[in-house]
Amino acid sequence: MLTDSWKDLAAKARSTFQASLEKAIELAGFDDELTQKYGNLPSSIGKDTEDFGLPAQYPLQEYIKTLPKEVLNITEKDPVELLKDLQSRKVTCVEVLKAYTTAAVVASRLTNCVQEFLPIEALEYAQQLDAAYETKKHLPLYGLPFSIKEMIPFVGRSVTHGSLCYLDRVVDYNADIVDILISNGAYPFVRTTNPQSLMMLECVSFAHGRTVNSHNGNLTCGGSSGGEGALNGLRASPFGLGSDIGGSIRCPAAFNGIYGLRSTLGRIPTADYFSCNMGSESILSVTGPLSRSLSTVDLVMKTVIDAKPWLVDPTLVPLEWKKPVQKKYRVGILWSDNIVNPSPPIKRALTMVSEKLSGLENFEVVSFEPYKPEEVAKILGRLYFEDGARDFRSTLQTGEPLLEQTRWAIEDAKDLDMHEQWYWNLQKQSYRKRFLKHWRGYTDKDGNLLDAVIAPVFPNVAAKHETTKYWTYTSQWNLLDYPVLAFPVTEVDETQDQPYANYQPLNDLDKYFYEQYDSPSSFLKAPANLCLAGLRFTDEKLVELAQILKDCDGDSD
Amino acid sequence: MLTDSWKDLAAKARSTFQASLEKAIELAGFDDELTQKYGNLPSSIGKDTEDFGLPAQYPLQEYIKTLPKEVLNITEKDPVELLKDLQSRKVTCVEVLKAYTTAAVVASRLTNCVQEFLPIEALEYAQQLDAAYETKKHLPLYGLPFSIKEMIPFVGRSVTHGSLCYLDRVVDYNADIVDILISNGAYPFVRTTNPQSLMMLECVSFAHGRTVNSHNGNLTCGGSSGGEGALNGLRASPFGLGSDIGGSIRCPAAFNGIYGLRSTLGRIPTADYFSCNMGSESILSVTGPLSRSLSTVDLVMKTVIDAKPWLVDPTLVPLEWKKPVQKKYRVGILWSDNIVNPSPPIKRALTMVSEKLSGLENFEVVSFEPYKPEEVAKILGRLYFEDGARDFRSTLQTGEPLLEQTRWAIEDAKDLDMHEQWYWNLQKQSYRKRFLKHWRGYTDKDGNLLDAVIAPVFPNVAAKHETTKYWTYTSQWNLLDYPVLAFPVTEVDETQDQPYANYQPLNDLDKYFYEQYDSPSSFLKAPANLCLAGLRFTDEKLVELAQILKDCDGDSD
Repeated sequence: MLTDSWKDLAAKARSTFQASLEKAIELAGFDDELTQKYGNLPSSIGKDTEDFGLPAQYPLQEYIKTLPKEVLNITEKDPVELLKDLQSRKVTCVEVLKAYTTAAVVASRLTNCVQEFLPIEALEYAQQLDAAYETKKHLPLYGLPFSIKEMIPFVGRSVTHGSLCYLDRVVDYNADIVDILISNGAYPFVRTTNPQSLMMLECVSFAHGRTVNSHNGNLTCGGSSGGEGALNGLRASPFGLGSDIGGSIRCPAAFNGIYGLRSTLGRIPTADYFSCNMGSESILSVTGPLSRSLSTVDLVMKTVIDAKPWLVDPTLVPLEWKKPVQKKYRVGILWSDNIVNPSPPIKRALTMVSEKLSGLENFEVVSFEPYKPEEVAKILGRLYFEDGARDFRSTLQTGEPLLEQTRWAIEDAKDLDMHEQWYWNLQKQSYRKRFLKHWRGYTDKDGNLLDAVIAPVFPNVAAKHETTKYWTYTSQWNLLDYPVLAFPVTEVDETQDQPYANYQPLNDLDKYFYEQYDSPSSFLKAPANLCLAGLRFTDEKLVELAQILKDCDGDSD
Repeated sequence: MLTDSWKDLAAKARSTFQASLEKAIELAGFDDELTQKYGNLPSSIGKDTEDFGLPAQYPLQEYIKTLPKEVLNITEKDPVELLKDLQSRKVTCVEVLKAYTTAAVVASRLTNCVQEFLPIEALEYAQQLDAAYETKKHLPLYGLPFSIKEMIPFVGRSVTHGSLCYLDRVVDYNADIVDILISNGAYPFVRTTNPQSLMMLECVSFAHGRTVNSHNGNLTCGGSSGGEGALNGLRASPFGLGSDIGGSIRCPAAFNGIYGLRSTLGRIPTADYFSCNMGSESILSVTGPLSRSLSTVDLVMKTVIDAKPWLVDPTLVPLEWKKPVQKKYRVGILWSDNIVNPSPPIKRALTMVSEKLSGLENFEVVSFEPYKPEEVAKILGRLYFEDGARDFRSTLQTGEPLLEQTRWAIEDAKDLDMHEQWYWNLQKQSYRKRFLKHWRGYTDKDGNLLDAVIAPVFPNVAAKHETTKYWTYTSQWNLLDYPVLAFPVTEVDETQDQPYANYQPLNDLDKYFYEQYDSPSSFLKAPANLCLAGLRFTDEKLVELAQILKDCDGDSD
């Protein structure tokens, strides 16, 4: 590939997007009023992929006021409720697709969260499902469109995972999980953005530009499943699929105020996704759903697992999706990792949740101490890029510039000799074993283990652009391969969330984060999420606990 | 370490063995008659560890006629039945230990299968269990001694895994599985031999010499859990623990006519065993029990898994040990891998089992075609020794000679660059996925999958020494991480098992194996085992199927 071919590729990426957008608008059937409203919206889609556009400050608000009522009637409904309407034919599959396509087109303009619309394929799926109503209406996801992160193979489309050099690599298969969802009545309708290298908690690449937060365009949507975060944060997709090797599902879920499950490795198929470093097995990426609807997260997981995906993907474990029946729960709260303290809204969210659970009769809440978090970045710093990021760097042969966030992610990378890799694998194994012992240390006198730990997802709510250089709150759990569910708690409050007075930073990094949180007004409307982390293969329990928390508020999805 | 220090180390290893043997004889309480009988036995224990002794031609026969009746009353009983006697105090723990120690001392002389006796620790355990009878009798393994492969950490003992350079590396912990078994009433009483590098299907090292087969001393006991194979083949241990990365449990089990389960990775703890290449994760070793008693294999697996070992070892999956309830079974027969055809007794065993199952009303038996076995050795040849065997070679700094079997195992090894490792990992992943699809190809029209495949463990019965240079029948399943249970079928028959007439070899390797099987008389008394292989995490089903096969014969353990 020739140096400086990247500009041509970027233009090509943009024109692919543009063509798919036009088709999507056609499918959605924009009338004059909507076309005008849409044209007046602030846009995060720049003039080219190097331009970061003019983000809407509060995208969610713009979005809601733009959409016609008949669209909102569909898209604002909890997807699990919408399924009932689809299954009883109160609404057709094509109607649902049109509504969600409208929503996604608007969401795309507001946050630049869409890599590519799939209007042609999606319409075909929706029409086929409508035509086969009698035989297919009993499918658990009958008629539900869903979004997929760009790195997830979809037949006939190129998969770049944020690197322009792969723009012509067209795949000839669907990811197993996509096929499983399709055979259960769902179908993909949009491919969402992911950043260069996939190794950032933001979402910027030269294949799409910058995706911004769905609640406040001055803030990042998180990454790497950033497009999913923003799109689902605007409720413009019933659910989406992301992937997570260091926080890439949970961070965008948290920054956009939705649910995001980083499942345990081996529950649902990920092994056929594309990325750099394929074949590197020391730390593996894992998939999971993002959605504003907890019931939908639950249903998607159950549907995929009920399909016995282990008969297709040999990396999976034949474990059913079974909700635990427990009379009593014991939950730990990780108030801080003692490296970077959470900002005021995150601290307040922790307090809220702690008080909520402490008030329940069948809950015991304890403080959970961090376990040597300083080892986490050290081990992962070696194992994320075992080849010294040679594979990633080779993607820059087109002349594509190295983004600052990527530069930071690879700066510690070292091309390991086999014995060095083994050494760091042993460190990883040792950390996992010691951490498990630490967790067991919270077992009560009757032998009841801690069911979950509630922790920050990030030291702050959605960060300002280019400031997410601390991963340990999420990557900790990747190192351990524990399932983690990000869940919404509250949002930034101008009165309650003033910066800490007379704060003594723990260290330079803590000082940096302390200073970032200069005022709640910088983070206005930003959601404050937390996460539930559990031992390996306790994914269902996390969903159950999140449901209990939701029920505390008398919320409905 | 100084070159040529190995001779001193070998002498030290021998004296450690010798001292433990004397203590064991003392514990066993040999009377004059037994001492004399013992002294008259042919010995496989050479004058030093370079000498291969004068093996008994038919060790099992020598063993049986040597042991006093009161010993045989204990050791010839199925261990699950013996447990009932222990739990009802018809026999004490110390009595059982003395009987098994007597048996192991004799077995050790006949086959050189013991690296080190543990008379002091074992006696302490047995006495404590007797003293705490009332509180401990309900433990599932109350009073049962067991053997452990030398590589399995036992507190206060050195772990060499067959390399003299580690003779002074004394460990300060028990392997998790050892602790779990101890807390369930069992205890280790002997450490068994394993070969140099652990990477051979025989059992020779300069730390112990050569272990021979329990049925015919002219043949190998198999490896690398060779000591376990020979000891349990003589019924001189209720059960033992081995490990398997290429056939190391199944091959010794098969060659000695007993059961051996290579469990699926993630069922029971292995992660804390010692070997070369620690930290290499591309292909992992896995543990499992060897025993002449199928019920004991079942009980040991159930006991370890009931202890929830995943709360101690973070590599494990929280899957209970649950016997499947199935009305109908579908079994494939792998008649040959079409690279090396099985010898006459193995072919006869396949026919016997196939006919047996075909005669059952609820069984469907089909032929299972091999799936690209030529890829297996190619991939494993790269991934077994990813460092070009540098780690292993460093163990030879003492001057310890490289054994021919090890030389062969490492000859293809290449010190891989990170990208080369990733490449071979991808080949592995691809093979696993394609093989699974191949397996699914045998699903019947009602959607019933194949429950298991019955296959040779090796192209022949127990091989002549130094001739086991073909692993694919076992290593195939390591590449796939499928559970495999070796089980006894028959033994070599001088009349029925004549060499094939007018045989046309498939290739040079097949010709080599064909020529090795020169006459059934070369393999007299050798057991002919086969194995049951299943999809990942179907370990229990294999035990169930082996039980059905056993029941066909009206056998009792």
